[in-house]
Amino acid sequence: MKAMNKGILIVLSGPSGCGKDTVLSQLIDSNEDIKVSVSMTTRKPRGLEVDGKDYYFVTREYFEKKIAEGSMLEYAEYNGNYYGTPKAPVDEMLNSGINVVLEIEVQGAAKIRQLYPDAVTVFLLPPSLATLEKRLRERGTEDEETLSHRLYIGEQEILRASEFDYYVINDKIRDALTDFETIIKAEKLKITRNKNIINEVINNV
Amino acid sequence: MKAMNKGILIVLSGPSGCGKDTVLSQLIDSNEDIKVSVSMTTRKPRGLEVDGKDYYFVTREYFEKKIAEGSMLEYAEYNGNYYGTPKAPVDEMLNSGINVVLEIEVQGAAKIRQLYPDAVTVFLLPPSLATLEKRLRERGTEDEETLSHRLYIGEQEILRASEFDYYVINDKIRDALTDFETIIKAEKLKITRNKNIINEVINNV
Repeated sequence: MKAMNKGILIVLSGPSGCGKDTVLSQLIDSNEDIKVSVSMTTRKPRGLEVDGKDYYFVTREYFEKKIAEGSMLEYAEYNGNYYGTPKAPVDEMLNSGINVVLEIEVQGAAKIRQLYPDAVTVFLLPPSLATLEKRLRERGTEDEETLSHRLYIGEQEILRASEFDYYVINDKIRDALTDFETIIKAEKLKITRNKNIINEVINNV
Repeated sequence: MKAMNKGILIVLSGPSGCGKDTVLSQLIDSNEDIKVSVSMTTRKPRGLEVDGKDYYFVTREYFEKKIAEGSMLEYAEYNGNYYGTPKAPVDEMLNSGINVVLEIEVQGAAKIRQLYPDAVTVFLLPPSLATLEKRLRERGTEDEETLSHRLYIGEQEILRASEFDYYVINDKIRDALTDFETIIKAEKLKITRNKNIINEVINNV
């Protein structure tokens, strides 16, 4: 019998407006063995966002209670709101062999790497800063001041991409998706993630 | 202008009879940016092997002179013959942005990793030891004693696969080729291999 491998923890970061949500939802749709971890946040729902699917929308009081209990994998304050990842559901999925994607802010990625040294970190880049600005404007959810603040933060985040394992450029969504899938397929072929493969080859009849 | 990246050095090892030559020749045929480094050996040519293409076939005296000059990247003695890789042509190709595959014995791979810490090491596995034996018999180039010696060495080599970065199982050649290409494509997306990508995104108009 083939031994089951643990799932791969994949950290996806990138500046606001680079298309993380779109890439991620298509990735989940076309790969049964990849699930996304649902984050918790104290910010208000935006547009058609659904509680329990896009985020768990909670109060500051509830979020701070979870932090105090030590049941958050990581959390950060960003634009005045908490964002974070509850730990238990992630570990459950990994132990069941499911690959889990965490979509988190850049500052959270470093913390994940400490807790899960074999996590794979991917930074989603826009083709250029100009493209990022264009996409943020098209989204049309922010006023001018918030937008220019987001762009400033975006540039600071891009400068930290060097802390990540892989980059994917989101120019054409189809290409970005293929690159993302390629990274995950290659990581599955790492010998450290397949400790039983040698015994299987030696003992296979 | 897009800055050119150095080529990736890919080390391919695996037991005799696992199909390294076949995988490699198909890989080269379908990927223009991948070249194979030609090894030097003191063993006699086998079948249709061509000097300067399959190997540089040289005398022991010549090989030992090259070792003394320090112009071998790695070398090993195996089954009473020297096998090794001349260093200069490999460095030239890497500096021109060409990805270079070294097909070398397992004992040589560790040496390459010391000299090129960012080399990618891939171990080609047969689906089982029984398949390996079958393939060696079908090749029909060895007598029974040599064959059982090769099989013994093959098993010892497979036990060292854990020292490699990636494994590829050569069951169906087409799948093995796809896996190999996936590994190279993913490695090209490593941020450490693309130091200019951040500046390009920040400065692109």
